[in-house]
Amino acid sequence: YQFSLFGLGGSRTYDMDSADSWMAKPITDLEYLKENSQDMKCRVEALIMRIQAEFCHALEKEEQQEGGKKFIVDKWDREQGGGGITCVLQDGTVFEKAGVNVSVVSGFLPPSAMQQMRARGKKLEGDKVKFFAAGVSSVIHPKNPHIPTVHFNYRYFEVESENGEKQWWFGGGTDLTPNFLEEEDVVLFHKALKKACDRHDKQLYPKYKKWCDDYFHVKHRGERRGVGGIFFDDVDEPSADKCFDFVTSCAESVIPSYLPIVQKHKKDTYSYKEREWQLLRRGRYVEFNLIYDRGTKFGLYTPGARFESILMSLPLNARWEYMHKPAPGSREAKLVEVLKNPKDWI
Amino acid sequence: YQFSLFGLGGSRTYDMDSADSWMAKPITDLEYLKENSQDMKCRVEALIMRIQAEFCHALEKEEQQEGGKKFIVDKWDREQGGGGITCVLQDGTVFEKAGVNVSVVSGFLPPSAMQQMRARGKKLEGDKVKFFAAGVSSVIHPKNPHIPTVHFNYRYFEVESENGEKQWWFGGGTDLTPNFLEEEDVVLFHKALKKACDRHDKQLYPKYKKWCDDYFHVKHRGERRGVGGIFFDDVDEPSADKCFDFVTSCAESVIPSYLPIVQKHKKDTYSYKEREWQLLRRGRYVEFNLIYDRGTKFGLYTPGARFESILMSLPLNARWEYMHKPAPGSREAKLVEVLKNPKDWI
Repeated sequence: YQFSLFGLGGSRTYDMDSADSWMAKPITDLEYLKENSQDMKCRVEALIMRIQAEFCHALEKEEQQEGGKKFIVDKWDREQGGGGITCVLQDGTVFEKAGVNVSVVSGFLPPSAMQQMRARGKKLEGDKVKFFAAGVSSVIHPKNPHIPTVHFNYRYFEVESENGEKQWWFGGGTDLTPNFLEEEDVVLFHKALKKACDRHDKQLYPKYKKWCDDYFHVKHRGERRGVGGIFFDDVDEPSADKCFDFVTSCAESVIPSYLPIVQKHKKDTYSYKEREWQLLRRGRYVEFNLIYDRGTKFGLYTPGARFESILMSLPLNARWEYMHKPAPGSREAKLVEVLKNPKDWI
Repeated sequence: YQFSLFGLGGSRTYDMDSADSWMAKPITDLEYLKENSQDMKCRVEALIMRIQAEFCHALEKEEQQEGGKKFIVDKWDREQGGGGITCVLQDGTVFEKAGVNVSVVSGFLPPSAMQQMRARGKKLEGDKVKFFAAGVSSVIHPKNPHIPTVHFNYRYFEVESENGEKQWWFGGGTDLTPNFLEEEDVVLFHKALKKACDRHDKQLYPKYKKWCDDYFHVKHRGERRGVGGIFFDDVDEPSADKCFDFVTSCAESVIPSYLPIVQKHKKDTYSYKEREWQLLRRGRYVEFNLIYDRGTKFGLYTPGARFESILMSLPLNARWEYMHKPAPGSREAKLVEVLKNPKDWI
C-alpha cells in the first residue's frame, strides 16, 4: 500500500495535491484550502478528504474484484455551518455495510457539549463558545464472518470562548472487532498501529492501546467491544505540527493494518452457524454504540444532528438471543474470553 | 378472554388464589404472601405473577395452534435482594421473540436512581434510601410483519429514607408498535385501554395517552416508536387501594387489547419486502430502547443488573439501512406519517 512519505513533517501541500482523487468537492472551497495551507483547519480538511478517498478506493478495489458494489457519495450541508460527505457501500459482495464519513462543522457549542468538555477539564468561559470540528470516521462491517469489523475516527477540534481564549486538540483511534479470534490477524493489526505511533514517540502505543481497551467497554456485559487498537483524545502536545503529523501517521496506518486481513479472509467459506454468531456479535456492537459511545450520544442529543451519518456505524443486520452462551472450549467462547480479559498482542 | 371480575375493589385474595397456574414459584414464599395479603408489596407480587401467567398462557395457545414453541421459564436471584422470573419464547411460529418478565427486588437505591427520582420531584433524605420494586414487563415481537409489536409494564415502588419517611407509587403502560397502519386494529387497541381507564376516572385515558406519545419519542428522528397507548408514573392518588385497582384493570386489558390483533393477522401472507420493512422498524425499536428508554438505561447503569432480562425487549433480528425512505404514498410512508404526527384514535 502506498501512503504518504511526507507524514513525518513532510510537504505542507501533499494532502491538497491529492484533490483530484477525492470522493467529492471538499466542504470548504479548494482554492481557499490551498491559499490557507498554513491554517490547521485547512490542513486537517485536506487530510481527511485524502484519507476518505484512499480508504474508499482501497475497499472498492476489493469489492470490484468480486463483482460487487461501489460507494454512493452523499454530500450534505449543515444548517448552522459546514457540512459533510458520507460515503456508503451497502449490501455489497465483500462488504455488508461500509461507511466512511467526513465532516467539517462549526458554530456555537450546544450546552450538552460544553458540559461534557468541562467535565474533561477544558476551560470554557461564558455561554457562547465558538467551535470548529473536522474529522473522518468509518465503520466497515464485512459480509464474511471471518473478516473483522474495523472502526476508525480521526478529528481536530478548536474552541474559542467569549473572552477570545482559544484551545485546540486532536483525537481519534482505530480498533478491530473480530467474530473469531485469529491471533495472527490481531498481531498484524496492532503492529501496524504500533509502527505508526512509534515513529513519533515509543510511549504512545502502550498508552493509547490501554485507553482503547478502557473506552470500548460494554460495561453491562463486562466485555470489550473487540480486540482493541488505539484511542486518544485531547492531544495537544508538543506542538500542533507534531500532533498533525502523528494523526496523519495513524490515519495512514488504517489501510496497511486492515486490508491484508480482508484479502486473507474474503474467500473463506463459512457456515450458517458462523453467520448467526456474527449477527449476535453485531448486536453487541449496536449495544456499545447506542448506550456508551460518546460520539454517538453527543451527536444524537445535538439538535439538528445528521443522525443518518451518525448511525451509519450500525450494521445492516443484527440479532439478539436471550442468554446466548457459546459452548465451552468453542471458538466463540475463546473470543468472549479475550473480550473479558484484554491482553497485550505485541 | 376471561379476566378478573374483582378488579374494581374485589376480593383481596383473587390474585393469590391463581397461584397454581403461575409460571414458577413466586419470589416471596407463597405462604408469606397469603399471610400478608393486606400488605401492598404482597398484593402486587401476586398480581404480577397472575398477569405473567395469563399472558404467557394466552400467547402459548396461539403459538401451539400453529405447532410452535413454549415459553422457557428462567428464575433468577438478585445478590442484593429479591429476584425475578423471565419467560422467553424465541424463534417460534407466531412469535419471533416474546418476553414476559416479573421482578421483585429490594435493597438500597443506587446513586444514579436517587438522582433520577429527585429530578422527578421525590423527596429522598440522606445517602441510604431503602427501596422495594415489583413489576411485570413484556415485549412481544411477532414473526408476521402484519402483527404489531406490543409492550407493557406495570410496577410498584416503595422508598424509605434514613429518617423513616416512606413514599410509594405505581407506574406503567401498554403501547403498540405496528409495521403497517391498520386503523381498525389501533382503534380496537386504544378502546380496550380507554375502557380500563374509564372504569376509574374518565380523565385518565386522555392524560396517559398523551404521556405515552410524549415518552416513546425517538427524538433524533422526530418519530414516535409506535401508535401509542397509555403511559403513567408516580401515581399515588387517591389511595393505595384505588391505585392498585386501576393498575389491575390496565394490566388485565393487555390480553383483550392485543390478542384479537394477533389472531386476525397471524395467517396473513407477507412478502420479502414487508419482512425487510419490519426488520428496519425493529432497528428503530432498538434505537428507542437503548438510547432513550428510562428503564433500560437505569437498569443497565445499575451495577449487578440482570442485563439479559432488561435486553429481553430487543428483537431477535433488526436492520439498519442508510437513508432508507419509504416511497411517497406507500403503506410504509403512511405509517411514518402517523409516527411523526401522533393522532387521537377514539
